[in-house]
Amino acid sequence: MSYKILDGKKISEKKLLKIAKKIKTLKTTPILAVIFVGNNSASEIFINLKEKACKKVSIKTQLHHYTKTNTKHLIKLIQELNNNKQITGIMVQLPLPKNIDKEKVLSEISFEKDVDGLNINYFGKILNSDYGPCTPTGIMELLSNYKIKIAKKNVCIINHSNLIGKPLALMMLKKDATVTICHDKTNNLKEHTRIADIIITAAGVPNLINSSHVKKGAIIIDAGVKKIKDKIYGDVNFESVKNKVSYITPVPGGVGPMTIASLIENISKVKIK
Amino acid sequence: MSYKILDGKKISEKKLLKIAKKIKTLKTTPILAVIFVGNNSASEIFINLKEKACKKVSIKTQLHHYTKTNTKHLIKLIQELNNNKQITGIMVQLPLPKNIDKEKVLSEISFEKDVDGLNINYFGKILNSDYGPCTPTGIMELLSNYKIKIAKKNVCIINHSNLIGKPLALMMLKKDATVTICHDKTNNLKEHTRIADIIITAAGVPNLINSSHVKKGAIIIDAGVKKIKDKIYGDVNFESVKNKVSYITPVPGGVGPMTIASLIENISKVKIK
Repeated sequence: MSYKILDGKKISEKKLLKIAKKIKTLKTTPILAVIFVGNNSASEIFINLKEKACKKVSIKTQLHHYTKTNTKHLIKLIQELNNNKQITGIMVQLPLPKNIDKEKVLSEISFEKDVDGLNINYFGKILNSDYGPCTPTGIMELLSNYKIKIAKKNVCIINHSNLIGKPLALMMLKKDATVTICHDKTNNLKEHTRIADIIITAAGVPNLINSSHVKKGAIIIDAGVKKIKDKIYGDVNFESVKNKVSYITPVPGGVGPMTIASLIENISKVKIK
Repeated sequence: MSYKILDGKKISEKKLLKIAKKIKTLKTTPILAVIFVGNNSASEIFINLKEKACKKVSIKTQLHHYTKTNTKHLIKLIQELNNNKQITGIMVQLPLPKNIDKEKVLSEISFEKDVDGLNINYFGKILNSDYGPCTPTGIMELLSNYKIKIAKKNVCIINHSNLIGKPLALMMLKKDATVTICHDKTNNLKEHTRIADIIITAAGVPNLINSSHVKKGAIIIDAGVKKIKDKIYGDVNFESVKNKVSYITPVPGGVGPMTIASLIENISKVKIK
């Protein structure tokens, strides 16, 4: 079987071109406030990529970097950014250090400025709008760009975080997929992946998925990110599965750029008052 | 194999006794406002059951019944009830007639008075609190009363509504289950139910599930409700599956009373100002 690549890099670049044109028509330059705590090297890479993408479409970024801080201070910072009319969007780079109450901090971000979809108080909006965090939104858009039908498909999601697995499940249900949500406590992963038409994995475990996990013709979205000695690895053993699947995302160049393009699009959509 | 009954009637009665004691200690009698539009006969039965349960624990009910009305009027009514300090909880009996914008109406209910968990704006709260709509909450409690472990189990939910399937999936994930959500667009239901340790069905389709759908020792929660000639039917062919399963809910007397007990508990928890 010959596989096709789901080229997130290409699709996202097209998308960014469109957004750049739209931003040129705006009266004010949008500004994204980026909050970064600690010095996680993967976070640094992601922030760098987001800043680059912003620059490409003429969005300004404002980095708030603290090597150490606390919940109270971050809440105060977010309240200030919420009230600051110059700031278009607010993004907190995850993970946050363990001393910080993540949900408390994220739940301070106002709905209008929550361009990354981090505040779970808006989770319900996924059910009756296009709202959704950036990674699931990027994945849905990648599939839609390749005209991959979702309805009636078995979709197996390996991730149950508030940021990826859960919202993605809701978005897939909206498109009439049958959805299975697996995670590190799943008893027998193969039992679920083998009946899946579409597998979306974001476990951060290289080689989690090989050809024995996938059925012939399956579609594989690899949103895994694990950095080992300066190289980024997904969850899927590409060589093992490639001749069994119909579509597959590369890592890097699949989900990552789509996530960033979703963030940029969300910033471009904020109504500046 | 000998099966055990998950006795929702018994468990809910115990629960109501406890709640009645608690309510006796309150300074003011709680009042539940019930909004009912149209004349759906199943809705009438449910309202009756809820009113009876309220009476049992000394909660007053206030019925707002309209054979016909519109979205605008219901929104105004809910705003008044939100502001009325005498009203403890607000419940809209579903389904609403098709001329009414259900989500718009439900999203007016204030968080404190949303004792039925209908307003999807609070959906995110399921992720980091005990909050949840009444049917999923009742199901979780029934399982917990019989000390049925959820972690690592394959849970298959046949329902993807905002009121049952989706919140139940999130609640099951919180307990580390692997969750599959099926519905009327599911391609091959058996493929999913046959690998399930726990099946929860709320399709309203009598005989949807028979022994060919279940694996030996499975646990069956039947939340289906279909009224045919004055008799209530669940989704499961009880006779067909009973010797293959380990636990099963009867219909009636399983999920129904647990749902009502959850509603009553939520009313009893509202802080009266």
